[in-house]
Amino acid sequence: MDYEALMPKQLHEPVDAALVPRFAGHATFMRLPALTSAEGLDVALIGIPWDGGTTNRPGARHGPREVRNQSSLMRKVHHVTGVAPYERLAVADLGDLVVQPIDLMAALEQIEAGIAGVCAAGALPLSVGGDHLTTLPILRAIHKAQPEPGPLGLVQFDAHSDTNDSYFGDNPYTHGTPFRRAIEEGVLDPRRVVQIGIRGSVYSADEHQWAKDQGIRIIYIEECDRRGPGDVMAEVRDLMGDAPTYVTFDIDSIDPSMAPGTGTPEIGGLTTREAQAMVRGLAGLNIVGADVVEVSPPFDQGGITALTGATMLFELLCVLASNR
Amino acid sequence: MDYEALMPKQLHEPVDAALVPRFAGHATFMRLPALTSAEGLDVALIGIPWDGGTTNRPGARHGPREVRNQSSLMRKVHHVTGVAPYERLAVADLGDLVVQPIDLMAALEQIEAGIAGVCAAGALPLSVGGDHLTTLPILRAIHKAQPEPGPLGLVQFDAHSDTNDSYFGDNPYTHGTPFRRAIEEGVLDPRRVVQIGIRGSVYSADEHQWAKDQGIRIIYIEECDRRGPGDVMAEVRDLMGDAPTYVTFDIDSIDPSMAPGTGTPEIGGLTTREAQAMVRGLAGLNIVGADVVEVSPPFDQGGITALTGATMLFELLCVLASNR
Amino acid sequence: MDYEALMPKQLHEPVDAALVPRFAGHATFMRLPALTSAEGLDVALIGIPWDGGTTNRPGARHGPREVRNQSSLMRKVHHVTGVAPYERLAVADLGDLVVQPIDLMAALEQIEAGIAGVCAAGALPLSVGGDHLTTLPILRAIHKAQPEPGPLGLVQFDAHSDTNDSYFGDNPYTHGTPFRRAIEEGVLDPRRVVQIGIRGSVYSADEHQWAKDQGIRIIYIEECDRRGPGDVMAEVRDLMGDAPTYVTFDIDSIDPSMAPGTGTPEIGGLTTREAQAMVRGLAGLNIVGADVVEVSPPFDQGGITALTGATMLFELLCVLASNR
Amino acid sequence: MDYEALMPKQLHEPVDAALVPRFAGHATFMRLPALTSAEGLDVALIGIPWDGGTTNRPGARHGPREVRNQSSLMRKVHHVTGVAPYERLAVADLGDLVVQPIDLMAALEQIEAGIAGVCAAGALPLSVGGDHLTTLPILRAIHKAQPEPGPLGLVQFDAHSDTNDSYFGDNPYTHGTPFRRAIEEGVLDPRRVVQIGIRGSVYSADEHQWAKDQGIRIIYIEECDRRGPGDVMAEVRDLMGDAPTYVTFDIDSIDPSMAPGTGTPEIGGLTTREAQAMVRGLAGLNIVGADVVEVSPPFDQGGITALTGATMLFELLCVLASNR
Amino acid sequence: MDYEALMPKQLHEPVDAALVPRFAGHATFMRLPALTSAEGLDVALIGIPWDGGTTNRPGARHGPREVRNQSSLMRKVHHVTGVAPYERLAVADLGDLVVQPIDLMAALEQIEAGIAGVCAAGALPLSVGGDHLTTLPILRAIHKAQPEPGPLGLVQFDAHSDTNDSYFGDNPYTHGTPFRRAIEEGVLDPRRVVQIGIRGSVYSADEHQWAKDQGIRIIYIEECDRRGPGDVMAEVRDLMGDAPTYVTFDIDSIDPSMAPGTGTPEIGGLTTREAQAMVRGLAGLNIVGADVVEVSPPFDQGGITALTGATMLFELLCVLASNR
Amino acid sequence: MDYEALMPKQLHEPVDAALVPRFAGHATFMRLPALTSAEGLDVALIGIPWDGGTTNRPGARHGPREVRNQSSLMRKVHHVTGVAPYERLAVADLGDLVVQPIDLMAALEQIEAGIAGVCAAGALPLSVGGDHLTTLPILRAIHKAQPEPGPLGLVQFDAHSDTNDSYFGDNPYTHGTPFRRAIEEGVLDPRRVVQIGIRGSVYSADEHQWAKDQGIRIIYIEECDRRGPGDVMAEVRDLMGDAPTYVTFDIDSIDPSMAPGTGTPEIGGLTTREAQAMVRGLAGLNIVGADVVEVSPPFDQGGITALTGATMLFELLCVLASNR
Repeated sequence: MDYEALMPKQLHEPVDAALVPRFAGHATFMRLPALTSAEGLDVALIGIPWDGGTTNRPGARHGPREVRNQSSLMRKVHHVTGVAPYERLAVADLGDLVVQPIDLMAALEQIEAGIAGVCAAGALPLSVGGDHLTTLPILRAIHKAQPEPGPLGLVQFDAHSDTNDSYFGDNPYTHGTPFRRAIEEGVLDPRRVVQIGIRGSVYSADEHQWAKDQGIRIIYIEECDRRGPGDVMAEVRDLMGDAPTYVTFDIDSIDPSMAPGTGTPEIGGLTTREAQAMVRGLAGLNIVGADVVEVSPPFDQGGITALTGATMLFELLCVLASNR
Repeated sequence: MDYEALMPKQLHEPVDAALVPRFAGHATFMRLPALTSAEGLDVALIGIPWDGGTTNRPGARHGPREVRNQSSLMRKVHHVTGVAPYERLAVADLGDLVVQPIDLMAALEQIEAGIAGVCAAGALPLSVGGDHLTTLPILRAIHKAQPEPGPLGLVQFDAHSDTNDSYFGDNPYTHGTPFRRAIEEGVLDPRRVVQIGIRGSVYSADEHQWAKDQGIRIIYIEECDRRGPGDVMAEVRDLMGDAPTYVTFDIDSIDPSMAPGTGTPEIGGLTTREAQAMVRGLAGLNIVGADVVEVSPPFDQGGITALTGATMLFELLCVLASNR
Repeated sequence: MDYEALMPKQLHEPVDAALVPRFAGHATFMRLPALTSAEGLDVALIGIPWDGGTTNRPGARHGPREVRNQSSLMRKVHHVTGVAPYERLAVADLGDLVVQPIDLMAALEQIEAGIAGVCAAGALPLSVGGDHLTTLPILRAIHKAQPEPGPLGLVQFDAHSDTNDSYFGDNPYTHGTPFRRAIEEGVLDPRRVVQIGIRGSVYSADEHQWAKDQGIRIIYIEECDRRGPGDVMAEVRDLMGDAPTYVTFDIDSIDPSMAPGTGTPEIGGLTTREAQAMVRGLAGLNIVGADVVEVSPPFDQGGITALTGATMLFELLCVLASNR
Repeated sequence: MDYEALMPKQLHEPVDAALVPRFAGHATFMRLPALTSAEGLDVALIGIPWDGGTTNRPGARHGPREVRNQSSLMRKVHHVTGVAPYERLAVADLGDLVVQPIDLMAALEQIEAGIAGVCAAGALPLSVGGDHLTTLPILRAIHKAQPEPGPLGLVQFDAHSDTNDSYFGDNPYTHGTPFRRAIEEGVLDPRRVVQIGIRGSVYSADEHQWAKDQGIRIIYIEECDRRGPGDVMAEVRDLMGDAPTYVTFDIDSIDPSMAPGTGTPEIGGLTTREAQAMVRGLAGLNIVGADVVEVSPPFDQGGITALTGATMLFELLCVLASNR
Repeated sequence: MDYEALMPKQLHEPVDAALVPRFAGHATFMRLPALTSAEGLDVALIGIPWDGGTTNRPGARHGPREVRNQSSLMRKVHHVTGVAPYERLAVADLGDLVVQPIDLMAALEQIEAGIAGVCAAGALPLSVGGDHLTTLPILRAIHKAQPEPGPLGLVQFDAHSDTNDSYFGDNPYTHGTPFRRAIEEGVLDPRRVVQIGIRGSVYSADEHQWAKDQGIRIIYIEECDRRGPGDVMAEVRDLMGDAPTYVTFDIDSIDPSMAPGTGTPEIGGLTTREAQAMVRGLAGLNIVGADVVEVSPPFDQGGITALTGATMLFELLCVLASNR
Repeated sequence: MDYEALMPKQLHEPVDAALVPRFAGHATFMRLPALTSAEGLDVALIGIPWDGGTTNRPGARHGPREVRNQSSLMRKVHHVTGVAPYERLAVADLGDLVVQPIDLMAALEQIEAGIAGVCAAGALPLSVGGDHLTTLPILRAIHKAQPEPGPLGLVQFDAHSDTNDSYFGDNPYTHGTPFRRAIEEGVLDPRRVVQIGIRGSVYSADEHQWAKDQGIRIIYIEECDRRGPGDVMAEVRDLMGDAPTYVTFDIDSIDPSMAPGTGTPEIGGLTTREAQAMVRGLAGLNIVGADVVEVSPPFDQGGITALTGATMLFELLCVLASNR
């Protein structure tokens, strides 16, 4: 069949939209080949369809499929940096981790094991959630896989700090608590954690105090607005230095007019132009993994949130490629 | 039942979202208790589900219910100012005024009587419309309830001046005319009326001339854009001084990408970040009442307009609290 | 305030839509008063906003709020049977059970405890889910509260048998397994379980065999179509007799054109006219509780599923009232 | 320009969809020419964009425009009866009556005057509402224009009887009261009023008693279901005989899965197949006017309600043509 | 990675939804493996994402991807017939044919070549369109591939006859003309063509005359309604006999309440229950290929049309399997 | 009928929204009279409902009708410039060009012929697409109609350069190639082509090289962001000078949060405020025609894209009027 002939000649290249229309074919991340092993890959694109840590509106379990769908609009080369990620990196779509939606503790183990497998194959995981609790087992796996011991740094784009202690009584694992757990476990170095775009009313006056006491740098949206992306990212690069750094992009960092499909929207967020400029400012960092989380298609409008998520995924991929 | 045990111990406190999920329970404004009397309250949150003055797309009658629904996302403390309104003010949800949708003149009387009752109980009305004509009877009631005679000042966030003379022949009462009526009646002092975010094509070249002749200060969106929220609000505070001032927030002041659910959208509006900064700039004024109007759920997209309205309601509440 | 004057004079009566418009006021089930205790009630309307047992599309946690919203369209008297439920029964809206979304086993306990409280107060629970796993702890509570020992009968309107053994490995508690658990626990008498409207492809050829082996009567949609509601319900009444019977109405029994907002839609379902006729056919049974489950607003279209759910809730209430 | 050349050669013929695509051109009813005078027409298609009588969800004011839009899908000949209406009747789109949305009593006069003009020109009005109160002034105008004195007959497809006395205190004119007013005024003969598809809960046990006491024949949906369209319409034709008869088609007679865009939906309604069969059964009656009302686009889903309304309008037009 | 371990052990089996949640993994038809060659397959599931023949609302090019997405809800065994298609047939998802959207004549060649390849590999094509013009090149390819010469029979579920001569002047190839072309070319035997569910207004009184003159059997929706699925299908089986027969299922045969996402909706259509019964009635025919066409996701509501399409695809697959 | 009396007294004036509600009447561009000849007009508003050049998501064929619908919100005078276009220019709605959707080459001829007719009548075409390939035949017609020979200048607001060579093999005419063709044909002077708002990933590193080699000035979104609308437009005016200039406004230049209804959305786009400022900056140029393209209603959300398109159309009309 013709389709075969038009498949990318090299393994890790997207289907060419000038030959095969974008609406055609199976929806894989970036129209890349679907593989089942990370062996030989530099970057593994993976979905984590799980939202068991969600405290309010669910649906992030449907995120990977819809981000795949919208990622058909991505092309091969970054229009500003000129980076051509597929020429520099071996990338593929590894499918979704198998995570069951019923048992939270078992799910965290499934996610950690899946990411550990990617790391063991030598690939860097670039995942699409899922809710923000998925980042905790990812961090655990990457932390364990580092050649040098020591906690990781974190650049977190988010509307919320996600450093609460517990929810609904004494549940320690929700999408509002992952970074507190990661710090307590020694997986993250709080002095190398920066949170960008934080906003919205809070439960109590001291809700962010624990985070600040640990040394976390919270850059509220008002500070982002005042300083601009360039200045903010210069500080971020200073904070992160050359040490291993994970990047997590919660789609709710973006304004809900541009990313309505998420569980806990907060108005007054980052514009996509600001977010793109900031992610581009990550170039040069020692990134050991990254994710885009909290895309919730049931609350999306016309796929715009998934499109925003897919574009931020492409921006992150180009940052990873620019470092090679 | 457990629910009872988890109800706020003090009367005027929201249900705690860290105990009871936000999607649970009856939808009241800010998850506050539902009361039927304003006695003992500092601020009464009230819905006015009426859109009989609407000249184009209807639906603002459904505004209060949907703003209540989305206000479940609000928490207790303002993340920038640190204001904790429920610690400073006795606030509750008084339900909706009973206003029938058929007879316009009777409806205006019902609204005025309802607000007069709130004022008589010593509470300040913070209402959710309804179309912008609802503000006229509110202003009448508050004006009558003032201890000192004299017209009120007005800070109006809006895409439209709403100072036309009449519509469809000689109808003097529509949502395009309330502030002309209020000035004619001596309820407002036009030299202390400021309109922010005005834009969109006009019926005639002199449509705003009457307003300007009275002394109304119109700050078009282009001037907002050029000067920024801080500079604009400094002028507003100068204009209002210490005298009694009412604040009306027409959701169509916000850009329709962020607030599509409204009857007369105009592109090129305020961003929510600008609007939040401006409302925060009202702190210190002598505010005698406030409203959020023109949220029209049938034209909304995914509840974003109601979410924006609920957040602006919270911002206004925090301004009121900051003055105590 | 006027609103107070218009509140129902008797405790358990809906707000009168000929006085207060339907879009006005807090959204409670049937516009009934919101109470926090079941004491003195004959029937307690309760929401159970929980979907932790959902294996596919989530969102049933948002069901109670949206069913409340649409139930504003219900009036006081049944147009066919003439039953006026509020004249015969003391009914109110007890709010939502407090159930946290993170820990499944804890949630099952919370639901059982909440329903047990209702039963202890002498009221019959008529609840709105929530996914179908919520019915398991409800059944447990009602079973324990029966004056006479012995398992309950069940009339189940559903597209699925929900008698699978486990999911995703060995998870025994999901919304696909509740009735197997209830039978195993002795809560249900399988020879008095009838399932109506079953359809859709199955996992294996013997998926329904366990159910049939226990004596469950499965009436597939094809049989419903052939025999008609009257004949089917005559058989159901014969099967149930005078013994205690629970009624569970899974909204996915209805065709997805009439109830799209659900987690596991199957085309070719019951029409609402058929479903209404069937529920009316329950009159005379010894009903000890009932529910409407699996309304998932994020997947709904224009509120039609919630409207269907609210109407079936009213139909069930009228059946309960007709027995007094 | 080509467009001109492709306009229908005869005055009252739709644009040909085999020449000009259906999505092209101005949206007029049935793609007919837009005229401003009814002189020379047999049937005048008119919009009445007014919903001032609506007691619950508004939006029927937007009905005519959207029905025009969807009516582009109609073709020229009826597939069952073979009637080609434009060969038998001079028909055109007269535009919308000018009715202002603010003053209810003035609006009723505007509608009556507009329809009176159509009648004076010798054309039969076939209108698209608008809420059901619009039918009252239409009936008044047609009644006055009859060559013979005496009340009219009425065939009413509806979920509701619309014969209540008043709403919200003492408002006599709402979309729930038109036919009571028309009977009181002698415009309708209640013994020649038949209401088809009535259903849904009622305010009180005797809500329909006044109607029945006057001699109105109410055919509930359950009776429609049992007897089928053919039998029902035989009775209707008997009741109407040869005397002047008006036909009003409330879109909420149709099931909300097929017509969700309406103000007061009731599940369990007529299917479109049943409704089409019934309207076809009107052939031979002495019809003096007809309407389709209560299409409310803000609550529609994908235009299906407007499509249903447009198709019923075509069915009614073919009935009118079949009588010539 | 775990995912690999959970992939179906045999080649042509869906991923097990009791192990891997339905929302997880790449969206393939029925969750089957994605292959690029039809060798060894009995049935090849193929997408044809092309709508270049569409005369009204486009979007069927997006059909295959969305039908894949919704087909995740299908399970392995038919609940009525007990047929387990994957035990009887080797089936896989061959992806989409590469068809460019710009040049109509080239596209027809691409489709024919693609299907010819499937036939040459010995597999039976079961495709998802795409608009109805895609069926013409499919029929050409299958016709050429038959071991015995002679025209094919056709069972066509459709609202429209699709036997017009030309559109927009003299365009012979549109989705309203394929079966006229196929008969003219000798690909179809008109005396073995049956069209089921035909309805809706027509361009001219003799629009269907050509079809009838050729011997095509048109079963209008009114006849379907009167006779019921069983009787209709008995006639269809008689007409088709043992000779090679193609089955084409235009989704617009279904009522638009159940399948709104299509280009030319007509109210009053088949219910899904009727359609399912009819397709099941095809068992025993000598089917040489089949398709589901005209699913247009941009006009769909909540994916219900794609779900209906996916289910009809499963029904067709089970019919094919039942013949083995 | 009253409607007639309220029609604009002068030919080329919109219906007055203070007399006739905006939701009433046939939807024409700006509520202007619908004419069928351009004779005597200064500016002809025309729809071009065609999307045959679309490589990804279709639907722009539905653009003109929906832009007409939303343009009811436009009034008569520009609020910033004070320009009253209908006092300065004779403008009307000429309807849609008749363009068939099946044969691409024939469609291009139909569009060119239609625009040539407008030019021959002495009117300036201001059109609404349709996809961006429609601009090629428009440019051809205008180019031929110029009194002086020589290529035209172009100001292009767009996310994409649209100067690719071919698609899907060797198709030279798609909506990604029009300006390359126009330059090759000598219709455009590449040194007077400026493209504003370009962004998004590209097919290859040298995708824009051909354009740059010809002398096209590409102003990427990042440069727009840095310099601001005023500075950018000063450069544009310098580039264009006094020579004949065409303006094409692709709605995808706007951010997809403000214009989601388009075929190839790219996040991070122009805000409407920026776009309005830029279009206002065109005043004084020698504009020979203009268009708004790529509004695709099937992908729109609540009509916001069509509203944005209608407003940009009004902005362009005011620029044309300001030059008189």
